[in-house]
Amino acid sequence: MSTLITDIGELTTNDPELGRLTDAALVVDDGRVAWVGAAPDAPAADERFDAAGRAVLPGWVDSHTHLVFAGDRTAEFEARMSGKPYTAGGIATTVDATRAASDAELAATVRRHIAEAVSQGTTCIETKTGYGLTTADELRSARIAARHADETTFLGAHLVPPGADADAYVALVCGEMLDAVAPHVRWADVFCEQGAFDADQSRAVLEAAAARGLGLRVHGNQLGEGPGVRLAVELGAASVDHCTYLSAADVDALANSGTVATLLPACDLSTRQSLPPARALLDAGATVALASNCNPGSSYTTSMAYCVTTAVLQMRMTIEEAVHAATKAGAIALNRNDIGHLAVGARADLHVLDAPSTTHLAYRPGVPLTHAVWRKGERVR
Amino acid sequence: MSTLITDIGELTTNDPELGRLTDAALVVDDGRVAWVGAAPDAPAADERFDAAGRAVLPGWVDSHTHLVFAGDRTAEFEARMSGKPYTAGGIATTVDATRAASDAELAATVRRHIAEAVSQGTTCIETKTGYGLTTADELRSARIAARHADETTFLGAHLVPPGADADAYVALVCGEMLDAVAPHVRWADVFCEQGAFDADQSRAVLEAAAARGLGLRVHGNQLGEGPGVRLAVELGAASVDHCTYLSAADVDALANSGTVATLLPACDLSTRQSLPPARALLDAGATVALASNCNPGSSYTTSMAYCVTTAVLQMRMTIEEAVHAATKAGAIALNRNDIGHLAVGARADLHVLDAPSTTHLAYRPGVPLTHAVWRKGERVR
Ligand SMILES: [Zn+2]
Ligand SMILES: [Zn+2]
Repeated sequence: MSTLITDIGELTTNDPELGRLTDAALVVDDGRVAWVGAAPDAPAADERFDAAGRAVLPGWVDSHTHLVFAGDRTAEFEARMSGKPYTAGGIATTVDATRAASDAELAATVRRHIAEAVSQGTTCIETKTGYGLTTADELRSARIAARHADETTFLGAHLVPPGADADAYVALVCGEMLDAVAPHVRWADVFCEQGAFDADQSRAVLEAAAARGLGLRVHGNQLGEGPGVRLAVELGAASVDHCTYLSAADVDALANSGTVATLLPACDLSTRQSLPPARALLDAGATVALASNCNPGSSYTTSMAYCVTTAVLQMRMTIEEAVHAATKAGAIALNRNDIGHLAVGARADLHVLDAPSTTHLAYRPGVPLTHAVWRKGERVR
Repeated sequence: MSTLITDIGELTTNDPELGRLTDAALVVDDGRVAWVGAAPDAPAADERFDAAGRAVLPGWVDSHTHLVFAGDRTAEFEARMSGKPYTAGGIATTVDATRAASDAELAATVRRHIAEAVSQGTTCIETKTGYGLTTADELRSARIAARHADETTFLGAHLVPPGADADAYVALVCGEMLDAVAPHVRWADVFCEQGAFDADQSRAVLEAAAARGLGLRVHGNQLGEGPGVRLAVELGAASVDHCTYLSAADVDALANSGTVATLLPACDLSTRQSLPPARALLDAGATVALASNCNPGSSYTTSMAYCVTTAVLQMRMTIEEAVHAATKAGAIALNRNDIGHLAVGARADLHVLDAPSTTHLAYRPGVPLTHAVWRKGERVR
């Protein structure tokens, strides 16, 4: 069953040769993009969807979320909005609730948030463990994540569990925990930050993960300058995420590496941090991605559109840069070349906006603009 | 036909005696709130809506929009986001397009944007003239606005039309134009800003409007400190809108007046201005409202939720203050006591969130949270 999507007012392909097309059409067949071109030249197909001049872009690639959680942190958020400072301590609350929850409860939460994301145009979502922090709880978190998300990351090194010895915990993560979890995930991550894991501990976790064939990601430079970016670049991580506080050397290192700088502006705003230096990164030539960091503590949103809007209005990214960051660069951060673009052969992940151009994502802040979504060639909204 | 809305997880009444209720219910009858109280005590009704633990609040009162327009300013927005400074000059583009549009086209645009606002929880919307700038075009703009919006404002003094003499134009506004338009509107407004109308010209317009029985509103202090706030307070305007740049004396004057400070954060972000000093205003005791300023040039959004989110995350307003500002204070800015609250007798304008508390409006930035909307007792979404 093939579908012709026609009368596309503006088609963002993220393909260097195709570029951005106007008055375009696209054919979806067998879950893939089968044809892209000018609307009048389109071949016949079994079904037809008239975009009526709307903009079409690749579905959002949300390369950073934490959806395997239980419990509620509304009160913590309210307290922070009343002026109390953000500390990493709140994660332990979620760890307790997550350990206490049943598999079914955790899976339902993951599914609910993925459905919410898809309804807003997200077609590829990464999610992490990290609220289990025992071998058994990290393992079941990884299994649940892998069953529902497109990409799964092991984040046993999210936090030293309260009461545990840091080095003993790192040894556990690097040994038994990784042995158990590695078969279920593609990625490993570490929270390299003051109050979480230092450079040596982070390196140990990442090297142990790499030795088991996992791809690397790093949470770094969220609350201040630190070793996260340097370590990520040195170890060839696919992405270093947050990058809120960067030295000039960090910016240079990213620009001269294959490591994506993944910015999480909804998190920075939700924790009243500064916004990250997107302009400096882009001007230096780094690859910049945007992701939601959806989690109940520091960034409880699934809205990639909010990240794009914020990037344009407040981080001086152009619309084109922001849309690229939330689609193609997210795919690069996940080492995926089948998504984030709409050339022939790409996965048919399409986002149709209730607007004539992607510019409206920033021009119309807060207005829900998702009109239709295809994921793997199937209409999901 | 009465409707019982029950199992309300959190009911924001904006009523000083009722406060915020949990496990509440509300009865709608004949377009009004007929009963409010604890869910177990609720009387019977013809129909029943189970809020299933969701939060219910008064519908948004959007006290500042400019919806009678034609034409497109996407390119101007794109240029601004590429770093060019914002000037008031772009309004003339919209004036040309508005004059060239048919009544039916203008009305369709107003209806489309009001429908979009209602679908996001707005149940009372003000809109303005101001893109006609001739007696005939201001008159038809006012008629179209009055047919569709809850409140209508005459803004003939939006801009001196290109090529016109400023004082001659002010005389026209104060004379023939007001004579023609006043019967169709409840409010008059003036853009008191460098590049638009100075203090003397603004005073002339406002006094002429007051002499015809119109309530007063002022656009002021948007691009820098200026006489707008002082003039609004002196003349007893219901509201002065923007308030982005305020002196300490302006804050004091507002705090000691009945004039509402209406903040338009989506506009400030869309024009890369600072955000307004909400905290200083609230701490001084001023009444602060939030509105969208929906218009195609400087703030093309109908999302009151985005304004509330921004107010909490970036302007240090509490959730309660921001929700009050977008409902009850908007009503005060429009001199309305039938809306913006949910005591018995109030207009039944209800917004049901897909969330257990209003906190989620800031906790979940960008996520569309509108679950159901009643306007004048009728389910409209
Ligand atoms: Zn994270
Ligand atoms: Zn305005």
